[in-house]
Amino acid sequence: MDDDNAGGEKSFALTIIISRTIEDIMSVLKIGIPKGSLEKATIALFEKSGWKIKMASRNYFPEVDDPELSVYICRPQEMSRYIEDGLLDAGITGKDWTLENESDVVVIEDLVYSKVSKKPTRWVIAVPGDSPITTVEQLDGKRISTELVNVTQSFFKERNMNVDISFSWGATEAKAVSGLADAIVEVTETEATIRAHGLRVIHELMQSNTQLIASHQALEDSWKKEKINDIAMLLQGALRADKIVALKMNVPEERFDEILEILPSVTAPTVARLYKQPWFSVETVISEHQVRDLIPQLKKIGAEGIIEYSLNKVI
Amino acid sequence: MDDDNAGGEKSFALTIIISRTIEDIMSVLKIGIPKGSLEKATIALFEKSGWKIKMASRNYFPEVDDPELSVYICRPQEMSRYIEDGLLDAGITGKDWTLENESDVVVIEDLVYSKVSKKPTRWVIAVPGDSPITTVEQLDGKRISTELVNVTQSFFKERNMNVDISFSWGATEAKAVSGLADAIVEVTETEATIRAHGLRVIHELMQSNTQLIASHQALEDSWKKEKINDIAMLLQGALRADKIVALKMNVPEERFDEILEILPSVTAPTVARLYKQPWFSVETVISEHQVRDLIPQLKKIGAEGIIEYSLNKVI
Amino acid sequence: MDDDNAGGEKSFALTIIISRTIEDIMSVLKIGIPKGSLEKATIALFEKSGWKIKMASRNYFPEVDDPELSVYICRPQEMSRYIEDGLLDAGITGKDWTLENESDVVVIEDLVYSKVSKKPTRWVIAVPGDSPITTVEQLDGKRISTELVNVTQSFFKERNMNVDISFSWGATEAKAVSGLADAIVEVTETEATIRAHGLRVIHELMQSNTQLIASHQALEDSWKKEKINDIAMLLQGALRADKIVALKMNVPEERFDEILEILPSVTAPTVARLYKQPWFSVETVISEHQVRDLIPQLKKIGAEGIIEYSLNKVI
Amino acid sequence: MDDDNAGGEKSFALTIIISRTIEDIMSVLKIGIPKGSLEKATIALFEKSGWKIKMASRNYFPEVDDPELSVYICRPQEMSRYIEDGLLDAGITGKDWTLENESDVVVIEDLVYSKVSKKPTRWVIAVPGDSPITTVEQLDGKRISTELVNVTQSFFKERNMNVDISFSWGATEAKAVSGLADAIVEVTETEATIRAHGLRVIHELMQSNTQLIASHQALEDSWKKEKINDIAMLLQGALRADKIVALKMNVPEERFDEILEILPSVTAPTVARLYKQPWFSVETVISEHQVRDLIPQLKKIGAEGIIEYSLNKVI
Amino acid sequence: MDDDNAGGEKSFALTIIISRTIEDIMSVLKIGIPKGSLEKATIALFEKSGWKIKMASRNYFPEVDDPELSVYICRPQEMSRYIEDGLLDAGITGKDWTLENESDVVVIEDLVYSKVSKKPTRWVIAVPGDSPITTVEQLDGKRISTELVNVTQSFFKERNMNVDISFSWGATEAKAVSGLADAIVEVTETEATIRAHGLRVIHELMQSNTQLIASHQALEDSWKKEKINDIAMLLQGALRADKIVALKMNVPEERFDEILEILPSVTAPTVARLYKQPWFSVETVISEHQVRDLIPQLKKIGAEGIIEYSLNKVI
Amino acid sequence: MDDDNAGGEKSFALTIIISRTIEDIMSVLKIGIPKGSLEKATIALFEKSGWKIKMASRNYFPEVDDPELSVYICRPQEMSRYIEDGLLDAGITGKDWTLENESDVVVIEDLVYSKVSKKPTRWVIAVPGDSPITTVEQLDGKRISTELVNVTQSFFKERNMNVDISFSWGATEAKAVSGLADAIVEVTETEATIRAHGLRVIHELMQSNTQLIASHQALEDSWKKEKINDIAMLLQGALRADKIVALKMNVPEERFDEILEILPSVTAPTVARLYKQPWFSVETVISEHQVRDLIPQLKKIGAEGIIEYSLNKVI
Repeated sequence: MDDDNAGGEKSFALTIIISRTIEDIMSVLKIGIPKGSLEKATIALFEKSGWKIKMASRNYFPEVDDPELSVYICRPQEMSRYIEDGLLDAGITGKDWTLENESDVVVIEDLVYSKVSKKPTRWVIAVPGDSPITTVEQLDGKRISTELVNVTQSFFKERNMNVDISFSWGATEAKAVSGLADAIVEVTETEATIRAHGLRVIHELMQSNTQLIASHQALEDSWKKEKINDIAMLLQGALRADKIVALKMNVPEERFDEILEILPSVTAPTVARLYKQPWFSVETVISEHQVRDLIPQLKKIGAEGIIEYSLNKVI
Repeated sequence: MDDDNAGGEKSFALTIIISRTIEDIMSVLKIGIPKGSLEKATIALFEKSGWKIKMASRNYFPEVDDPELSVYICRPQEMSRYIEDGLLDAGITGKDWTLENESDVVVIEDLVYSKVSKKPTRWVIAVPGDSPITTVEQLDGKRISTELVNVTQSFFKERNMNVDISFSWGATEAKAVSGLADAIVEVTETEATIRAHGLRVIHELMQSNTQLIASHQALEDSWKKEKINDIAMLLQGALRADKIVALKMNVPEERFDEILEILPSVTAPTVARLYKQPWFSVETVISEHQVRDLIPQLKKIGAEGIIEYSLNKVI
Repeated sequence: MDDDNAGGEKSFALTIIISRTIEDIMSVLKIGIPKGSLEKATIALFEKSGWKIKMASRNYFPEVDDPELSVYICRPQEMSRYIEDGLLDAGITGKDWTLENESDVVVIEDLVYSKVSKKPTRWVIAVPGDSPITTVEQLDGKRISTELVNVTQSFFKERNMNVDISFSWGATEAKAVSGLADAIVEVTETEATIRAHGLRVIHELMQSNTQLIASHQALEDSWKKEKINDIAMLLQGALRADKIVALKMNVPEERFDEILEILPSVTAPTVARLYKQPWFSVETVISEHQVRDLIPQLKKIGAEGIIEYSLNKVI
Repeated sequence: MDDDNAGGEKSFALTIIISRTIEDIMSVLKIGIPKGSLEKATIALFEKSGWKIKMASRNYFPEVDDPELSVYICRPQEMSRYIEDGLLDAGITGKDWTLENESDVVVIEDLVYSKVSKKPTRWVIAVPGDSPITTVEQLDGKRISTELVNVTQSFFKERNMNVDISFSWGATEAKAVSGLADAIVEVTETEATIRAHGLRVIHELMQSNTQLIASHQALEDSWKKEKINDIAMLLQGALRADKIVALKMNVPEERFDEILEILPSVTAPTVARLYKQPWFSVETVISEHQVRDLIPQLKKIGAEGIIEYSLNKVI
Repeated sequence: MDDDNAGGEKSFALTIIISRTIEDIMSVLKIGIPKGSLEKATIALFEKSGWKIKMASRNYFPEVDDPELSVYICRPQEMSRYIEDGLLDAGITGKDWTLENESDVVVIEDLVYSKVSKKPTRWVIAVPGDSPITTVEQLDGKRISTELVNVTQSFFKERNMNVDISFSWGATEAKAVSGLADAIVEVTETEATIRAHGLRVIHELMQSNTQLIASHQALEDSWKKEKINDIAMLLQGALRADKIVALKMNVPEERFDEILEILPSVTAPTVARLYKQPWFSVETVISEHQVRDLIPQLKKIGAEGIIEYSLNKVI
Repeated sequence: MDDDNAGGEKSFALTIIISRTIEDIMSVLKIGIPKGSLEKATIALFEKSGWKIKMASRNYFPEVDDPELSVYICRPQEMSRYIEDGLLDAGITGKDWTLENESDVVVIEDLVYSKVSKKPTRWVIAVPGDSPITTVEQLDGKRISTELVNVTQSFFKERNMNVDISFSWGATEAKAVSGLADAIVEVTETEATIRAHGLRVIHELMQSNTQLIASHQALEDSWKKEKINDIAMLLQGALRADKIVALKMNVPEERFDEILEILPSVTAPTVARLYKQPWFSVETVISEHQVRDLIPQLKKIGAEGIIEYSLNKVI
């Protein structure tokens, strides 16, 4: 009757309540995915690893095709706080933000993938190109603008320097350019944006990369610990497959040893004798990087029917 | 001379005439591809299956790289009528529209792929969230708006109910919201759009999915029948490959039986003894879904060099 | 308490109920705006006329800044049916769809604005460029595809012709091109799309344009009748202002009559004698079209300080 | 020689130094424009008021066509701090962020324009739709996520409540939905986003709007004070013109008084007797809102040649 | 019959033939519009001046709503050649390309509007930032890449210098950067692109701007000459209106002279005595640029009801 | 000190100088990539072949992950000139432009990949559909517009014809349509654009395709020669892999010969006897084109577990 009036929306609210209750009974791992520049790459990595995460348009709860997982989308800046407080069991975030939050969490695995380049993410101190400042020491008494207030403060405290550090709500480079700050502490991979603003790097504060982190509580639960480790293994397997390809070729008996010698061995090559022929089928996985040098050599020694194909996972 | 004046356009017209004549002499199967939300996915499925269909900008006749095929783009709503009338031999369309048209055609194969989710397409009756209507019976004497007029009419006729059903030119949900209709019959996968309009589902009329259908005449022609069946086999093979991957690993002799036991068998694994080593190379295809659970187990038992790769077809 | 649980969504439902009740007490005119190709132009026309209509993202109820109006978004194809049935009081739609629905409604005003060109909208019969058909009579026994089934049926019934007319779900041109129909009845302004498909027009069925229509019931209510007429006046005033500009100039006394003679008079020009100078200030509104010819003439006769500015409404 | 090597870039650096030096000699007002959602509207408002601000692609220093102005683009969140510290003289920002920063600055003018609706910007406390929390008091001991940490803290301190408030890096609604926070303090105009997330507003913390603010130092400089006031006058004049239009008509002598009576008077109408005719030309500026009601009345009384046109400024 | 087969396309060809014949009988002016970066601005300028030019999707013949005009779209680089050869009567193009083509045509009017900035277009010689070259003389024996081959060749010939000039197919800056050329001659307004490539300007070859040019033959035809001059007048009138606005205010009798004194006079202000009031209505057109300074002054002296509105043309 | 002032920009200039010096000491091959319509496809082909080329936003120097390569982006029209002059060692460009430039370079390899279709690129002579011209001979004394001036001139010189050929800056088809040229020489794959402009092809001047070309000097350097050949081998291997797939199946001993017979042999199939089973594992690479016909046959003969997968390279 009356209860019915609340309609679909009430049942939606019930869905949330029920799904939360289920988490309490069943074994469910709560894992955080970083919102923003790493979001797409992270979801793609999980897909390659075996988990399909589907973002709802309103970002309520991303769906995942594993009843043992509950996925949350969080800002990387806030991730380690939620894990430390036990609201999440594990999550993917940047090492920099875990340090900024001074969170007491466990690093499970470094996952080196990033937004733009293959270079590591770095937090640097930069000043306008025409600034007389060239050393960290000259920043004493100056104004610095940054999103990484705590790490920056520690850095100058250790040096017994007095610097006026204020939180930047974004577009940090512009502040150094326009004179609203004397220097900035900003994150960069290639320094392209920094240079495009006419700024000059005078110091590197720290390097960072993506990490899988977990809470102490979660790791004390043996089921959760194993689940986290399985995820880590498959994420790494998928990341590795990005840089590795399979190579297959037929090799004449008499050149077999010669060819085996030059084959780099990520794992031992799989060798089988061909049926009724004095040839071997040789199959191996090698770094994609080496292929362009290896194939001309293999060809010269006598390999034939060389084919290369892509891999999804290499464990 | 004068004839020449009509220029390229005349020769274009001739091309059409000639191509039609060719269809009469040679064996050509006329097949319909659904325009609209399934169009892209269908063309991609055909490409994976072995046929490249290239849409012309004006959608005249999509080109296909098989002289035995003639491809037409039709609204899924009209497909079964053209097949029943013999204008097309076969086509891809939704089960719902074949029923709506009450067409006498043959279902060759259910092809389960869809637009958004993995859930089946459903036609449901929905009312405004605040409507007092909660059962089908309460719809007697009410106004219903739908694109599926015939199926809806049959549904209420069977129940001896008198309902004012009118054809909706789209945006059907809005009619229930604004009070222009008391209820709607609308298609949905996840109910997201229905809920977003504040509507409530009170009944499911039918489920639907994509199908390959053909005309009786076409199936009486043995060449056409075989062509249709070959297409069906390859479409299914390509669809299956979406959910299946190949897994390859090296296994020590002594753990061989143990590992074989836990390998799920879509088809029997291919086993070969490695050259001069006490190891086996094992290769199998398994559901992509199982990989994330299987790999950690295989690793524990002793499998090495596990690699996974994607497939185009699994027949 | 319990009631409170249903939260914001319940109160949303209440809002709808309340707003409907208000319509019953207060004088409110329910007016339909055409969804689709005319939607944007219609909303812009209303804005210019004095009513801001704001589309909600989900198209529930567009908001309008006039408590005496209740705006609905409907397909133009369905508009006249809702007005005839009294679900709406008035609406903007095409003359063609009112005829197709054979609705008994009152035409208040022709509003000539359209999507692309300044040419009228026309429904034409078209055949493939290489078809032997050149006259309407040759269509006897043929297949015709169209969205305008009823008007087309009447057309051929009047001629005692037997034609197989079937409803087209869109992309109608493609059916004539691909041979799924022998001819089509389709709407066009410039024939560009028809020609681009290689089709040839053999007959014009009817011309159409946008209209403001109303129900008989609404016009019997004197408040509603006046409101509808006021809207009509302001819509026309805004449409007229699109093609008319204001021209202002200073004219020496001695050339005054000469200049007045060549000024076209949409309304009589406003003439004022300048303070302490032998000059007149002359201001008039004229068709934008005439300006480019008029200004060089005015200049030659001696007008100075000629300025032109745009108008929002000309009543 | 060597000096020359630094090339164009060095001269660019010099440009900056020189332009700064110029600011010291000449009278220049440093004014901040808010980056982000208000940026485009603010630049458009300045353009309408008489200043063209051109954003450079890298946002170094937006160019402005007034040598007495120096324009900076700042986050609205940081604006009041820069003004308080004297780095800027004046700026456009939200009242909310000035309060959050507890900055000691002077409010020159409220400028009511905003992003979406005509409704004021409000900071509200919201909880999940299914939360048992319905009053502010029930938030004691709970977790709140917000971008407005200081204002929120003061609010609860005044009530002697103990609440765990943490800074949100954005997507604040999602935190309440996913249970990472018990409540949020978030900004909204129409509550559309809040409702779309299934949240429920339980309290309004404060209302906000855009303001022109200035520093105490700047206002002590009489040149700067006058410049700031001139800018304020023109910004208000341009804002006012958005809602006001000019109406011009010819009125017969005998109905003159009648018509004058119903004309609303933003400023007194300009009346002139037409040359050699028993008519008056009447011109007035009125709220755009009133036009749709006024024109039908004027028409009935006998006004003719009514035209309406838009204004850029109304002072 | 047979003739009919060629269908719509033949009639299209006929349309072209007919329209060409019409040009021969009637007085028609063939005018060229520059394709590319100036295209949109030029079409907008013509629209403001009184001619609506509608681009067809295939750019055959743009339609224009003046039977006395025939509009062609040409590359600005080729325009002067077509005019010199009499294929066109007049056209809009850059002074630079007329010089490059060494065409014997008549400049009717300089039309100063451009793509990006208000600065003139300049052709400059630029070298890499780290090049030792700083003077024109040092370019002797070097490689120069440019789109403006002839003008560049003349420039160096006059200086008796031997330079290897080759035609650049675009992306000219990149050639200096990558060392494929020692210097480039390139067009620029703000030098932004040049600086962004790290290049340094060492010399300015010439300045350029948009021009209306015509052929000698066309100017000998009195009808064409007048038509060209009328177009020139209206284009200039529309350009002028971009920078000029109308200002209207009521002024008390006693301050009248004072106010008239500070009013800048593009054209003499229109003054009228208000009906039965000791006030004057003053109306004037002034440079938009002056408004922001003038309004505060007028206000102080006692002007009231100051309104500003935009103009379409000022002749 | 002073040196330091030049900041990041100076060090950028140094980077260029250093990188150039490195090219002089180390063995580095300078290779040109065609800018424009082939750019994306060429970079993708290099990536598949083993070289990742990353375009910088300003196109300075694309980065490549091989210290032995230096990549330049050039217009295909200019490529052969830079190679002939020794500024580049090798490059990818169209055969047409090498001919147009009459460059003395060596063709290493034809690389058949293109923009749109699988058809070869052709330069054709086209005239308006309604032109009386139908043969090359009729072009004597006519105006031709083309981007390929030299090749076109040679063509007519060989025929002793006098034709007025002028360089077209693009949009060449429009010139024939609008009568600014009597004919055009233009490049096309499918003639779609030519037909869409209503033009008619009367002759084919030449066919073209993409090529890897190199300078004589580079080929005299044995290191460069080998590097160029290795690149050619891998580019071809990657191109081949686009049209070839791997097929793997299990075959019962008794049908083995039958199946081997119908397997097309790009390279000999790899056959291995399955462990302890009367089956063979057969693996082969075949043209993707044949798969759709082959699989139904294989299935009928008794092959099982047929899988198909994609390849990156086939050497």
